[in-house]
Amino acid sequence: MKTINIGLIGFGNVGQGFVKVLSKNLSIIREVYGYNVKLTYIVDPVKGSLYSREGLDLVKVIKYIDRDGNLRSHPNYIGEIHSFQPIYDKETDLIIEVTPTNLVDGEPGYSHIRKSLEEGKHVITTNKGPIALFYRELTRLAEKEGLYLGIEGTVMSGTPLIKTIRYGLSNDINIISGILNGTTNFILTKMEEGYTFDDALKEAQNMGYAEADPSMDIDGYDLVAKASILVNVTIDGDIKPSDISRISLKEYLDEKGYQKNLKYLVYLEINEGRYSVAPKVVEEGDILTSVKGVNNGVVIRTESLGEIFIYGPGAGRLETGYAILTDLLELLKTHMRIKR
Amino acid sequence: MKTINIGLIGFGNVGQGFVKVLSKNLSIIREVYGYNVKLTYIVDPVKGSLYSREGLDLVKVIKYIDRDGNLRSHPNYIGEIHSFQPIYDKETDLIIEVTPTNLVDGEPGYSHIRKSLEEGKHVITTNKGPIALFYRELTRLAEKEGLYLGIEGTVMSGTPLIKTIRYGLSNDINIISGILNGTTNFILTKMEEGYTFDDALKEAQNMGYAEADPSMDIDGYDLVAKASILVNVTIDGDIKPSDISRISLKEYLDEKGYQKNLKYLVYLEINEGRYSVAPKVVEEGDILTSVKGVNNGVVIRTESLGEIFIYGPGAGRLETGYAILTDLLELLKTHMRIKR
Repeated sequence: MKTINIGLIGFGNVGQGFVKVLSKNLSIIREVYGYNVKLTYIVDPVKGSLYSREGLDLVKVIKYIDRDGNLRSHPNYIGEIHSFQPIYDKETDLIIEVTPTNLVDGEPGYSHIRKSLEEGKHVITTNKGPIALFYRELTRLAEKEGLYLGIEGTVMSGTPLIKTIRYGLSNDINIISGILNGTTNFILTKMEEGYTFDDALKEAQNMGYAEADPSMDIDGYDLVAKASILVNVTIDGDIKPSDISRISLKEYLDEKGYQKNLKYLVYLEINEGRYSVAPKVVEEGDILTSVKGVNNGVVIRTESLGEIFIYGPGAGRLETGYAILTDLLELLKTHMRIKR
Repeated sequence: MKTINIGLIGFGNVGQGFVKVLSKNLSIIREVYGYNVKLTYIVDPVKGSLYSREGLDLVKVIKYIDRDGNLRSHPNYIGEIHSFQPIYDKETDLIIEVTPTNLVDGEPGYSHIRKSLEEGKHVITTNKGPIALFYRELTRLAEKEGLYLGIEGTVMSGTPLIKTIRYGLSNDINIISGILNGTTNFILTKMEEGYTFDDALKEAQNMGYAEADPSMDIDGYDLVAKASILVNVTIDGDIKPSDISRISLKEYLDEKGYQKNLKYLVYLEINEGRYSVAPKVVEEGDILTSVKGVNNGVVIRTESLGEIFIYGPGAGRLETGYAILTDLLELLKTHMRIKR
C-alpha cells in the first residue's frame, strides 16, 4: 500500500470541512486507489497545530474541534509552529492550503503555495487570492516541477466547474456566463420575494452567508477574482482581477432599484477577450432564473456543442471540502500513476 | 511533432459530425497538445470507404459527403474493404467506432471494439449497444492492455456527464436522476403545449428526432441502455440493461394520459442498488422541469456535496462528434503523456 502524507495549512471552515469529508472517504481511497492517506500536520495560528508522523486520527480531530472550537487539548497538539514547517518536512507529499482569502497580495497563501511547489510538494488550494492574482506563475511553476496544483474549490466549491472546463470541453469555449456568488444571489432571491436590500443583507448575515463587511460580495470583488480564475483556466491565460470590468451590485441597486430577474452575473466573452462582472436582467425563462438562493449556476457556450449548464452549491464547508477531495483523487489518478 | 493515426468505422450522422468538429480543431490540437492528428481510414459499407496513409483532407471529405451523400467519387475512395482493415493496420493508433446502435448483441460495434483493443489500439465510441451490454468486459480489456476506451458520447452526446462522474465527483454518489432521452422529452414538451401523443410523435419524426419505428425511445429501451452505462461508470460495475426496471412511456400514457410536469426519468439509486426507467410527475419548481424539448438534464446527489445539475444537448451530429473530440483530447492528455 502506497502512502501520501498531507500537511493541512489553515483550519477554519474549509479545513474542518475537508477533514470531515476525508474521514468518510479514507476507506474508499484505500480500496479503489490503493493509497493510504495520512494527514500528518494541521497548522493554524488560531485553532492550534497538530502533528503525527503516523497520521492523525481524523475522527478524534473532528471530536476535539467540534467540542472545544480549537485543538489545544488534543494529544497531538504541538503549540505554535511556523506554517512552513510541513512544507519543509521531507516526508510531506501534498500541502493543502486553505488559509483566508486575501485579494490584495494573496498572502499568506501565495507564499505557502509557491514555497510548497519549490520544495517539490503537490498543492491543493481553495484560496482564491493567490490563484486569482498569480495563476500563470503558479501553474507554470507546478508544470515545470511536474507537480499537481489543484484549484477546484476556488470557484463554485465542490461543483466541478473547473474540471468540466479542463476535461469535459474542448478549446472552443466562446462564452461563460453565470451566477458565482451565493451571497448576492441569496440577496437578490430575497428581494424578488419583497425584501429590501438592507433586510435581505441582514438575513444573509444572520444565515452566516455574508461577512460583517459585505463589500467583497456586494461590490463584486469576489466575483472578479473568480472570473479571472475561470478565464485563465479556459485560455491558460494571465488575466488579473483588475482586467475584469466590474459594476457594484450595491451601487446599481442604489441607482436603479430592483427589477424582476435581476442577476449578478459574471460574463466572459472568451472569443472576444471581454470580461465583466455586472448586474443584469435576464430574460423570463432563461435557465439562470432557476438559480435560487446561495446556489451557483453557469452556462458555457461552445462552438460545436452549443450550451451546457452546470448548477450546484457555490459555498459551504463540506462542499468546499469536497472540492479538495476530488482534487486529491485527481492527483492520485494523474500524477501518481494510479488508474481507476 | 507526434502523430496519431485514426481509423473511423462508421460514417453516418455521428461519423460525419466528428469529421466536421475535428476539422475545426486540428490546429488547436497541434498547438496545444503537440499532436498531428491524421484520419487515415473512413470505413462505411453504405457511404463508401477512404484511405490515405498521409491522412485524409478533412475539408475535402466534408465537401464530398455533403455534395454527393456518399464518398464514391472521392479521390481516396478504395471500394469495399472489410471493417477490420484499419484495426489490423499496424499504423493505426486509435479506432473511432460509430456504427449504428444494436441493443440485442451490440454488433458489429462489439467486435470492432474488442478486436481493436486486442490489437493494441485505443478506442473511442459513441455506440451505446456494446458499452451497455459489455461494459465490464471491454473496460477490463482496455485496462489490462493499458489502452484508452472513451465512451463520453454514449450518454448525453457531448455534454460531459461521464467525465463529470469520473473526474469531478468522488465515490459518494447516492442518486442519479434525470432526462436522458431527447425524443420523449420533446414529445412530453409538446404534450404540455396541448399536442396529442400521436401529433407530438409525428412532429418529432418530422424534425428528425424520432425514428420511423419509435419503440427504442417511447418504450424506454434507449433509456435502460444509457442507465446501465451510467451505473457502471459510477460504481465500476457489471449491470446489464435487463437489470434496469422499465416502464414504457407509451403504455403509461395510454393508461393514465398526460399530466403536467410528467417527465420520462432515469432514476438510479446507486446506494440502494435500485435502478429504474419510468414516467414520473415531478414537483412544480423541480429543476428537471427546466429541461425542455430535445435537451437532457441530470441531477446527481452526493453524500457530501448535495445536488448538482448538468444540462445540455443530448443528441445531434455535431454534439456527438464533440464527445469524440473531448475523448480524443483526454486520450492525448492521459495516455500519451501530454500535459496541458
